[in-house]
Amino acid sequence: MNLKGLRKPVGPHSNCSHLARRLWDSRYVSDLEELRDRMRAFTLARDWEKFHDPKSLLLALVGEVGELSELFQWLPADQARELTQTDSLKTRVSEELSDVLLYLVRLADVMDIDLANAARRKMDLSESRFAAENFRGVAPEKK
Amino acid sequence: MNLKGLRKPVGPHSNCSHLARRLWDSRYVSDLEELRDRMRAFTLARDWEKFHDPKSLLLALVGEVGELSELFQWLPADQARELTQTDSLKTRVSEELSDVLLYLVRLADVMDIDLANAARRKMDLSESRFAAENFRGVAPEKK
Amino acid sequence: MNLKGLRKPVGPHSNCSHLARRLWDSRYVSDLEELRDRMRAFTLARDWEKFHDPKSLLLALVGEVGELSELFQWLPADQARELTQTDSLKTRVSEELSDVLLYLVRLADVMDIDLANAARRKMDLSESRFAAENFRGVAPEKK
Amino acid sequence: MNLKGLRKPVGPHSNCSHLARRLWDSRYVSDLEELRDRMRAFTLARDWEKFHDPKSLLLALVGEVGELSELFQWLPADQARELTQTDSLKTRVSEELSDVLLYLVRLADVMDIDLANAARRKMDLSESRFAAENFRGVAPEKK
Repeated sequence: MNLKGLRKPVGPHSNCSHLARRLWDSRYVSDLEELRDRMRAFTLARDWEKFHDPKSLLLALVGEVGELSELFQWLPADQARELTQTDSLKTRVSEELSDVLLYLVRLADVMDIDLANAARRKMDLSESRFAAENFRGVAPEKK
Repeated sequence: MNLKGLRKPVGPHSNCSHLARRLWDSRYVSDLEELRDRMRAFTLARDWEKFHDPKSLLLALVGEVGELSELFQWLPADQARELTQTDSLKTRVSEELSDVLLYLVRLADVMDIDLANAARRKMDLSESRFAAENFRGVAPEKK
Repeated sequence: MNLKGLRKPVGPHSNCSHLARRLWDSRYVSDLEELRDRMRAFTLARDWEKFHDPKSLLLALVGEVGELSELFQWLPADQARELTQTDSLKTRVSEELSDVLLYLVRLADVMDIDLANAARRKMDLSESRFAAENFRGVAPEKK
Repeated sequence: MNLKGLRKPVGPHSNCSHLARRLWDSRYVSDLEELRDRMRAFTLARDWEKFHDPKSLLLALVGEVGELSELFQWLPADQARELTQTDSLKTRVSEELSDVLLYLVRLADVMDIDLANAARRKMDLSESRFAAENFRGVAPEKK
């Protein structure tokens, strides 16, 4: 999906300027930018920037990964997905996944890293590094 | 930001239909949906779905959190941000943040969870749970 | 310290047999073997062996590492030690450290690994790999 | 097991003094104290105490837990044990388990916590909290 065109404003004086304006605005649909902005505002409003150095955020993220793990740890691996599709467990998994994401987004922001673009680049790398024809059905081994 | 308006198509017969069409398409700008779709296609093309049960994905995520931690572990906490702003370290941090994100996105997909919406709901919860006026400058304590 | 000699009983008919007996018993001083045996008996008594495959134990360990992290995450790094020396926090840190240790001991047992000997060998490796004269004051860099 | 008797030297002039000496030495059999002392000496010899604040040690531990996870992540859960019993994989698992243990031991030392005793107390707690008759075959649920 090429989004480049979308991200340039259309001439504001055309008859369609109202749509053009909304189109321009729509670049803000980015989930990750939206969450980044909310986390940033949330942090500022509470004067919590002082807590958000990278190592602290990383430990907070580890805490949330731990909570996520606790939801799955004793489930039989081949039924783990099914057994967590109940409303109550799915809600808890959603919340822990969200907590991990929110600290990740915040850590990227503190580091001044564009997380969506970084992830796109990483996908490009993985796609070329693990050529589908060579890795079909074979898990990549860690060096 | 209310995006509801953007997600409804504008009448296709207006003079501005070309813009309207692009506006409609723009709902797909969602980063997280884009990354989810790429991870899904990446997995399918390599026949790796069989590896992607929740517990395995979670351990893979833990592996990436570990790699991220290694980049920060011995840095003085109050200089950690600055010391990782060199091109080389920032690239490595970007890659590890991306790896964590991609496994998180994949885990959410396997669990059939809409990660962006889950994170929005979690932010709503946090905003009401930690009222700014009560938590100004005070880190939330874990029960 | 070579303990091999200690682990063989001394002839029981010598005049010193009372000491020899105590010497033989003393091989049980091993903390890690004691904890391993207690965890093994604890698991058996509850019929929990079925839950203790390596991946499940690893996720349980991750859960405990997460709880440990939550105790430290927002503390200023250079005061983290002091601020957790209160009775209440030190007790909680002790409990979380213990939980991590106990799952680690259990995982080693399930894997049929002698954890104390493995750790001694790893120390030997580190002592030769990081020669004191070359690494004085310099944190080892991850490749 | 009462070890107090063992920790007092037996009169050195008895005929059994060679055994008494070995018995006295055996109080050092405590694995965790031995590893703690070696890690402490290792750190001092390299002037690395300055790196060993709790948050840094915790991130180092997370790094090692990550490396351990990478060895298991894609293995089928019910074969994970067997598939890691090859010489090469078992050695790697041993090394990663050791790394986690060594950072844990070091963190406990920095915190001035007697890890073996803390773990014994935690086992006492778990044994009373999870009465065998109530938890037979049922994994404990996280609140």
